[in-house]
Amino acid sequence: MSILVVGSVALDSVETPFGKSENLLGGSATYFAVSASFFVPVNLVAVVGGDFPEEHITLLRRHGINIKGLEVASGKTFRWKGKYGYDLNDVATVYTHLNVFKRFSPKIPPEYKKSDLVFLANIDPDLQAYVIKQVEKPRLTACDTMNYWIENKRKSLLRTLKKVDMLLLNEAEARELTGESNLLKAGKAILALGPKKTIIKKGEHGVLSFSDNSVFSAPAYLLGTVNDPTGAGDTFAGGFMGYLRKSGRFSSDSEIRKGIIYGTIMASYAVEDFSVRRLTNLSYSDIQKRYYSYKQLTRY
Amino acid sequence: MSILVVGSVALDSVETPFGKSENLLGGSATYFAVSASFFVPVNLVAVVGGDFPEEHITLLRRHGINIKGLEVASGKTFRWKGKYGYDLNDVATVYTHLNVFKRFSPKIPPEYKKSDLVFLANIDPDLQAYVIKQVEKPRLTACDTMNYWIENKRKSLLRTLKKVDMLLLNEAEARELTGESNLLKAGKAILALGPKKTIIKKGEHGVLSFSDNSVFSAPAYLLGTVNDPTGAGDTFAGGFMGYLRKSGRFSSDSEIRKGIIYGTIMASYAVEDFSVRRLTNLSYSDIQKRYYSYKQLTRY
Repeated sequence: MSILVVGSVALDSVETPFGKSENLLGGSATYFAVSASFFVPVNLVAVVGGDFPEEHITLLRRHGINIKGLEVASGKTFRWKGKYGYDLNDVATVYTHLNVFKRFSPKIPPEYKKSDLVFLANIDPDLQAYVIKQVEKPRLTACDTMNYWIENKRKSLLRTLKKVDMLLLNEAEARELTGESNLLKAGKAILALGPKKTIIKKGEHGVLSFSDNSVFSAPAYLLGTVNDPTGAGDTFAGGFMGYLRKSGRFSSDSEIRKGIIYGTIMASYAVEDFSVRRLTNLSYSDIQKRYYSYKQLTRY
Repeated sequence: MSILVVGSVALDSVETPFGKSENLLGGSATYFAVSASFFVPVNLVAVVGGDFPEEHITLLRRHGINIKGLEVASGKTFRWKGKYGYDLNDVATVYTHLNVFKRFSPKIPPEYKKSDLVFLANIDPDLQAYVIKQVEKPRLTACDTMNYWIENKRKSLLRTLKKVDMLLLNEAEARELTGESNLLKAGKAILALGPKKTIIKKGEHGVLSFSDNSVFSAPAYLLGTVNDPTGAGDTFAGGFMGYLRKSGRFSSDSEIRKGIIYGTIMASYAVEDFSVRRLTNLSYSDIQKRYYSYKQLTRY
């Protein structure tokens, strides 16, 4: 009854028109794990360097995240710097220092091997496949990816897609992967590549999800202030899979839709502040309140 | 129990990456009237030139549209040519020949004056105000506008906004009118200008509607093929106000939301083909079918 996430734990520097902040706790696995931790226990696999601040470890622990799989390697932690313009859907990478992440080879601790939900955040598709090999009969595996892998490791990515149940990616990636500019066509083309389900994330425009017999469109939660969109996609995935694991009904279309709304709610909190700051200040009743407020926003 | 629309009836030429077509029946009042005609009788006020093809008149009549207010002036009909790129949300105007529209002064025929819903399509805000003067106690007046009026007749526009119940406009116009880039803030800023309600149209990303005590977000209907987005906004307005007039409950939040969905459905049909072609081939049961298919797409 737990979720395994494999991805990055990083130190981010972020600049937006509304402010900037350095050496923030970031990384795909971080956002996913903190978000999912509001629903179920999370097992985390990632690597950091000797320079990784103790306070961040404390934060992950406080969220009940199992960090037995967080390797501390000699060297420096993965660092990324991004700069956002007024269109917060677009980010320019200022630098990416992979550091210890360059030699990351995810080893799944024995006690994690029975995790029944697995999220393979955006890492090399060969490493994603290597993780799948190590877990025992997960009930649902989902992965994310990015333009770099689509362009440079397409064959590996296509191999991995045959092994996962679900692909989560943003709209630009969906178009690039499939060659279809229309998202309805792109969604269906992804299902033809292997995954039984796919979720296309459209940032402030919400998400689309596809399975053989269901297409779902959900707008984003409407916010008056967006301060930092970093990690919104992984936070979404964490809320989505966290809810689904808590519900236990992995193949129910209506539970998948509810999970998508919970993912949307978690992402809406994430973008209100830098790093995972807003998420760490949440209570479960805040999440419930915003879920009902989202219902007011969308019901007809 | 009828709707009055005042706007343009035009001959459009449209180029998209998927085809082009010349001298099509177009204009804001045309799209609105054809769309609304599926729900209630429509009274149309506009002007065309002596060159306006008889077949288009026949088409409007066939839809039960009252064209007593369609003035035939000496001169040429308003012509517009637009060119779309692959991003169908953006259109470049190749030319605008106002022709007889330049001297358009909307005179409301006596039998139209008791119309209880009034839609002032995108025309000079002074003309919009002149129309409001001529109608007797309409129960709901709505208007559209565009960047040209926001930039060049701002004072007139602000005066008109104090006299209408509702403003419909697209997201770029909402940002330009209010100086707010965030749409939640822009929506609230519009309410402060006078209208009790506003609908912000986001093209393929759906619509947002605002009133004092309600914010509603609805995604667009998901289409595999979009051939010509021209007129989508006015078709939306026609479906929205047509449904609302049919329902009769103009101030019910839940009826307004349903109207927005019907507007969305009508717009989704409009963009499937050039001009009003797809709309003229519709039956009311097609509309109902797509309404239920939209429910499948959005319910959770």
